[in-house]
Amino acid sequence: MFFHSKRLQYTVRVGESNPGLANLMLEQFGGPQGELAAACRYFTQYLGEDDPGRKDMLIDIATEELSHLEIIGTIVGMLNKGAKGRLAEAAEEEAELYRSITGAGNDSHITQVLYGGGPPLTNSAGVPWTSAYVDTIGEPTADLRSNIAAESRAKIVYERLIALTDDPGVKEALGFLMTREVAHQKSFEKALYAIQPNFPPGKMPPVEPFSRIYYNLSQGPGDMQGPWNSEAHFTVKDQVEEVSAVDGGDGGFTVKLSAEEDQLVQQMARRTASDPQADPLTGADLGGGGLPPVPEKP
Amino acid sequence: MFFHSKRLQYTVRVGESNPGLANLMLEQFGGPQGELAAACRYFTQYLGEDDPGRKDMLIDIATEELSHLEIIGTIVGMLNKGAKGRLAEAAEEEAELYRSITGAGNDSHITQVLYGGGPPLTNSAGVPWTSAYVDTIGEPTADLRSNIAAESRAKIVYERLIALTDDPGVKEALGFLMTREVAHQKSFEKALYAIQPNFPPGKMPPVEPFSRIYYNLSQGPGDMQGPWNSEAHFTVKDQVEEVSAVDGGDGGFTVKLSAEEDQLVQQMARRTASDPQADPLTGADLGGGGLPPVPEKP
Amino acid sequence: MFFHSKRLQYTVRVGESNPGLANLMLEQFGGPQGELAAACRYFTQYLGEDDPGRKDMLIDIATEELSHLEIIGTIVGMLNKGAKGRLAEAAEEEAELYRSITGAGNDSHITQVLYGGGPPLTNSAGVPWTSAYVDTIGEPTADLRSNIAAESRAKIVYERLIALTDDPGVKEALGFLMTREVAHQKSFEKALYAIQPNFPPGKMPPVEPFSRIYYNLSQGPGDMQGPWNSEAHFTVKDQVEEVSAVDGGDGGFTVKLSAEEDQLVQQMARRTASDPQADPLTGADLGGGGLPPVPEKP
Amino acid sequence: MFFHSKRLQYTVRVGESNPGLANLMLEQFGGPQGELAAACRYFTQYLGEDDPGRKDMLIDIATEELSHLEIIGTIVGMLNKGAKGRLAEAAEEEAELYRSITGAGNDSHITQVLYGGGPPLTNSAGVPWTSAYVDTIGEPTADLRSNIAAESRAKIVYERLIALTDDPGVKEALGFLMTREVAHQKSFEKALYAIQPNFPPGKMPPVEPFSRIYYNLSQGPGDMQGPWNSEAHFTVKDQVEEVSAVDGGDGGFTVKLSAEEDQLVQQMARRTASDPQADPLTGADLGGGGLPPVPEKP
Amino acid sequence: MFFHSKRLQYTVRVGESNPGLANLMLEQFGGPQGELAAACRYFTQYLGEDDPGRKDMLIDIATEELSHLEIIGTIVGMLNKGAKGRLAEAAEEEAELYRSITGAGNDSHITQVLYGGGPPLTNSAGVPWTSAYVDTIGEPTADLRSNIAAESRAKIVYERLIALTDDPGVKEALGFLMTREVAHQKSFEKALYAIQPNFPPGKMPPVEPFSRIYYNLSQGPGDMQGPWNSEAHFTVKDQVEEVSAVDGGDGGFTVKLSAEEDQLVQQMARRTASDPQADPLTGADLGGGGLPPVPEKP
Amino acid sequence: MFFHSKRLQYTVRVGESNPGLANLMLEQFGGPQGELAAACRYFTQYLGEDDPGRKDMLIDIATEELSHLEIIGTIVGMLNKGAKGRLAEAAEEEAELYRSITGAGNDSHITQVLYGGGPPLTNSAGVPWTSAYVDTIGEPTADLRSNIAAESRAKIVYERLIALTDDPGVKEALGFLMTREVAHQKSFEKALYAIQPNFPPGKMPPVEPFSRIYYNLSQGPGDMQGPWNSEAHFTVKDQVEEVSAVDGGDGGFTVKLSAEEDQLVQQMARRTASDPQADPLTGADLGGGGLPPVPEKP
Repeated sequence: MFFHSKRLQYTVRVGESNPGLANLMLEQFGGPQGELAAACRYFTQYLGEDDPGRKDMLIDIATEELSHLEIIGTIVGMLNKGAKGRLAEAAEEEAELYRSITGAGNDSHITQVLYGGGPPLTNSAGVPWTSAYVDTIGEPTADLRSNIAAESRAKIVYERLIALTDDPGVKEALGFLMTREVAHQKSFEKALYAIQPNFPPGKMPPVEPFSRIYYNLSQGPGDMQGPWNSEAHFTVKDQVEEVSAVDGGDGGFTVKLSAEEDQLVQQMARRTASDPQADPLTGADLGGGGLPPVPEKP
Repeated sequence: MFFHSKRLQYTVRVGESNPGLANLMLEQFGGPQGELAAACRYFTQYLGEDDPGRKDMLIDIATEELSHLEIIGTIVGMLNKGAKGRLAEAAEEEAELYRSITGAGNDSHITQVLYGGGPPLTNSAGVPWTSAYVDTIGEPTADLRSNIAAESRAKIVYERLIALTDDPGVKEALGFLMTREVAHQKSFEKALYAIQPNFPPGKMPPVEPFSRIYYNLSQGPGDMQGPWNSEAHFTVKDQVEEVSAVDGGDGGFTVKLSAEEDQLVQQMARRTASDPQADPLTGADLGGGGLPPVPEKP
Repeated sequence: MFFHSKRLQYTVRVGESNPGLANLMLEQFGGPQGELAAACRYFTQYLGEDDPGRKDMLIDIATEELSHLEIIGTIVGMLNKGAKGRLAEAAEEEAELYRSITGAGNDSHITQVLYGGGPPLTNSAGVPWTSAYVDTIGEPTADLRSNIAAESRAKIVYERLIALTDDPGVKEALGFLMTREVAHQKSFEKALYAIQPNFPPGKMPPVEPFSRIYYNLSQGPGDMQGPWNSEAHFTVKDQVEEVSAVDGGDGGFTVKLSAEEDQLVQQMARRTASDPQADPLTGADLGGGGLPPVPEKP
Repeated sequence: MFFHSKRLQYTVRVGESNPGLANLMLEQFGGPQGELAAACRYFTQYLGEDDPGRKDMLIDIATEELSHLEIIGTIVGMLNKGAKGRLAEAAEEEAELYRSITGAGNDSHITQVLYGGGPPLTNSAGVPWTSAYVDTIGEPTADLRSNIAAESRAKIVYERLIALTDDPGVKEALGFLMTREVAHQKSFEKALYAIQPNFPPGKMPPVEPFSRIYYNLSQGPGDMQGPWNSEAHFTVKDQVEEVSAVDGGDGGFTVKLSAEEDQLVQQMARRTASDPQADPLTGADLGGGGLPPVPEKP
Repeated sequence: MFFHSKRLQYTVRVGESNPGLANLMLEQFGGPQGELAAACRYFTQYLGEDDPGRKDMLIDIATEELSHLEIIGTIVGMLNKGAKGRLAEAAEEEAELYRSITGAGNDSHITQVLYGGGPPLTNSAGVPWTSAYVDTIGEPTADLRSNIAAESRAKIVYERLIALTDDPGVKEALGFLMTREVAHQKSFEKALYAIQPNFPPGKMPPVEPFSRIYYNLSQGPGDMQGPWNSEAHFTVKDQVEEVSAVDGGDGGFTVKLSAEEDQLVQQMARRTASDPQADPLTGADLGGGGLPPVPEKP
Repeated sequence: MFFHSKRLQYTVRVGESNPGLANLMLEQFGGPQGELAAACRYFTQYLGEDDPGRKDMLIDIATEELSHLEIIGTIVGMLNKGAKGRLAEAAEEEAELYRSITGAGNDSHITQVLYGGGPPLTNSAGVPWTSAYVDTIGEPTADLRSNIAAESRAKIVYERLIALTDDPGVKEALGFLMTREVAHQKSFEKALYAIQPNFPPGKMPPVEPFSRIYYNLSQGPGDMQGPWNSEAHFTVKDQVEEVSAVDGGDGGFTVKLSAEEDQLVQQMARRTASDPQADPLTGADLGGGGLPPVPEKP
């Protein structure tokens, strides 16, 4: 179970109200690479995990991500605090208030009008957070790779946010959060490679030779060679007959239907057949102008 | 630009109509780990990529994933073909048709009633595909890790689907698709490590010592040690004073408000203050029964 | 910040594997009335709250809801544990495994095929959780009412789940969770009524007499009187002239356009006008059969 | 403004409780082709429409669709009525109740557990209704075509639902609803063709000759000719050089960057370049087993 | 299966970096009327189609729409290229970078902060693409009408985008894309009318006389006559008794419940009845101020 | 069934075109607290309600909310009218039109480019309306509380919008709409308290003593006392041993597996175990630079 301490994991000192910057920060609060996504990702893996070591690690990190969600949410709240008071008390003239709401040039208007200046679980475009962002599938060698990737992405988004603010307190707290993604990535890497073998993931072996072929399906002047399709590891196929119907069949598709099904499918086909010989008058003809008068349907 | 050949990349031979199995297959058609997600992932990266080698690889694989989308969609179409004719032509008695629609025990009813037996871009629960599944962020060391993870997840879901069917033609085609995920993972791994350095991702260095600390935030009997928190690589912190306010501050949060903002925020606070001394009668009291008659509001 | 203890808030003892029941339990894990929604609701209010008493209460309860999320997620994990092993190790014949996956008669197939038996953040129909469920708007008298309502709804959904299971351990844990919703509702009621006045919510007064009128817009044999439209508190209006254009105007709508705008709007209107005198031949006529041959467009 | 009469537009007589059938009916209540989508579609067009004739038609039909929403919702409510009482009063043993909830073989469990037997605004898979289903774009020749198509789709889904029930009262009411879609389609066709010209939609003329070319981009044994690509109306292009870079350019893509932008883009390219000559050791190699001992990083 | 050529279908020449314009262009990349929606629409119809002519046409056009997705995505990428380098390399001072990110006045901030300047599958408001936009239902006369409407809508959105840019290269490429929607609409019209009859769509005949009635449900000064409700084709009903309970019944609703169901439903009704005679004290009374002291619950 | 009168419930007089203000108004058209949500909430409750008095009230108010949807939608349409003509007729130079589209500083660009100036069912950030906003669960004491809360929230959002505009006609119409939320809240309060008892909601009694305990899970300097955790009504628990495993168990979790399940779960655990003693080389090590040459996998 969870406990909470009123001390943040990292002290937040914000220089001044700035609802436009607050809106950008939402990306790491309720955005796809943000802290709620991270916490939910590791928490659901923790619940489904049976390995005692990984289970412990997952909940340690999930709990930390919740603490980070609190830090970034606190930053959003502080940046919005002045604007919140201004709208709740409607202190200014309407026209001035309108300008201050819409003038930030991003989506801060929705944070204020709909969410009252509190930190909503949306990204910086106001899109609600969805668990479709959480890609946990309940298999450790896949989930750990997903975690490694997620930490990388979060690190980059923090980097972008740091580049956008010159408020020293915000910058410093974001630097801490960015760095912790690096630490978490290291832990997940260790956990992945402590499972041996971990590649290919899962239990079923590949069907050979298909795991050692590279299909060069985009051709033309930009064709390149690199380690991803090098002869040392891959056979490159680029001729049409080599890349299609690779099972040696005809590349077609069939299903065995029962006699009744077959009869019904054919009946449906006849009923809805297009006549390839027709040159029918169409709605576009009727609407295109220039058509001679047409007789009414009797 | 794209071209299409009427030959599939892998021949599809389905043994018999089975809308319940068709519904499960949707997981890899319009599900989060499915082929549309894969194709969109690599195609959007291709469009944003400037490195000529990676750009070529990304479009090769994106094009192949589109061809896989066609294979899995063809399997769905074949498995649904008999049921489609049956409902379109309404050949059976209503009660029998109702039983066949709802009897499969999963969500195949929606594939038939709403989508007419065609392959819809939903997962096996009927949830529409969303680009929220696509985690491309436009930085190659992050995106390649995301691709590696995505291929791992797709491999596992195919493995589960293979375990669920005894139709040899379906099994064989799924085996091909599963194997190609392994091949793609290998290519993405090569591409990632051909960027040096690629860790930590991005450009900004971590703020030390925070990248070398492990915060043990879940404590109790299940506490474990492993490579993810080993002394060789991490300093483990588990005392309350070590894990909170790690910047050395007070763990609080502040913002500097202008005098006007401050006054408005305080005015709002006064207006909406809760009286901690009150013991107010509440709605729950009014609804809980047993209350003596209360005087009307004058 | 958050801490975690490996002891649950309430001990979970599940009698036997039951993925169908696990699927129903998801309603309170990742469903709209579930524990993630509750935790996020109170946590975001906590971040935006300035009143010290309410702020403390909100984080106390948010932290408890996270602990409840852990309990219900643990129940899901336990109920799915056997099925998870069965699919991961593919121990049975495919046909038998297929029957066990699709035979539960609800959406447990997706929990297993897509999420590998772990507890996903979806409701019992497999719909991903969305923060659109969180109705926090950053005003305490509204948010506290939202919380009171949310606790009521959660209480009812737990009641339904309890009615559906005869596993004593599951029943007991659900009874605890249901009861805590009652306790939380009581606290939120106290906090709401400790703000005085709290009705009408917000700062702007109603425009009278409109707050004391009841518009009887559905008329006919089922028309009823009750406290919600009683003469003691409301003036009932039910004549057409009383209920429309209640401002005394003509019920129309106007906007003052600039001369340039007006000219453009009129130009657009002319360009897209429908001729009310026409009896045009239409696409439906072309498709309805029985039409005499129509001349080709020259 | 709207008024309501307690008499339905069509009398609803349901033969017996059937929550499984109720669930299928949701398709036309809160599904993409259902009555809420229809009502919202025409209502939003009505609000944006300036042509007095079309404006009148749109609100007539929007109002009727709301009345249809009421009919289909009433059918759902009646079909669920018995099950609602059963769960609310928890009259049966848990095991029996569980069987009755999950035994219908579709998604009726969610209607009951989450929505308490009321008609929720979801489709038959429990997916919440979204205005993403409403394709109004505010241009009459496009919107009227969208309406014609929407009425066609709704007609078909009703046809499928009618085929699935043998309850005479339900069948009769559905027959009425299905027929009204036909009537509405006829009205929208008339309204479209009463605008002349209406093709191509909008104001800008096509760039010739591109509106008269058919690009045959899928080639192979199934290539067909029909009115959609006939020589009478189209020039068919099927040679690679005819179908790509059709503007006569090189098919490439360029942007003029400022000197500063160019320098930054090149710097980013260098920093993230993949070395095409490398054959790096990768994560997959580390996880694949069989690797000789590797030296520790010093 | 698909193949890719590195030459675009239409050469893209962008005059200068412009992330604000890039953001608007997203409407046709990942928006509801955009090219991904078009490609998915025709591709899923192709998979479910049995008529050989239509099947060929659908995949020809689906493949072309993928090629258009590439063109519009390339335009987005080029327009964002400078901004991407600027943020990735963080070349400017933070304050200046912040201004350039938020200054465009639309949602370009999210394209840059979250997606790194690559083209994301969202619309111009940052809303993720969803297959809820794809209205394929697996019946050709409905689906072809949906396609005709979709092409009309796409044509209009391109027209609006063309009106917004003065970059000649962008304008020219958009003109090509707009024109191809016209060509596709013509093909789909031909394919629809080559099915005879195609109206009413589907197999079941309408229930007469309901297909020939127009219900005038919105009444008042703006009532109009036009071809959509003309006497030549429709009987107009506008009297209350003519438009409600049109089956001749009482407009009520009934369900036959079993004795047990009936008893449970009545028990539930009694338990939750509202007392129409009550004038209860309410929560609003408690919060409205001015209430005399109320006695404590004993 | 529904009827419509062409007179609005409240006359709308808009002073001038203002697409930026129109965009903010969308919050109450297609936003979570807006009129569509309100109408759908009460309409679905009406359909599921059996109590004749509440049923009448619900449809009276649902019908009024539809009339309010029409008012707010009309305001949006009027505010957008000039901009709509400007873009449809493309009267200005492109650069000027671009500036007017993107210059409003909020999301008005999408209303214009995608929706053509009509009122779309989105919120002010362009997020499509979803029935996930509708929290009806089919139990009257919960649903009435949800309605009370919803009216409160809507009142506040109107208050914010009123503060943002100085157009007298818009301000007046919004004042009417705001006030009606107050009236509706009063009616719903009366209806709730006319059910006795209504607390706790539903039928099952709480499990005591858990309804009378307050768990103080967030501790530290900000700990407060108030009516929500006062000794008069709650026992406060704040010691670790008092707040965890409150059932007196060990706080653990167990499930009884069959022998076969147990064996499979153990097999899976062994196959995917992490070796806690390992110090494996990881992908991060490979990417971090500074690694000595590693031998190729043979």
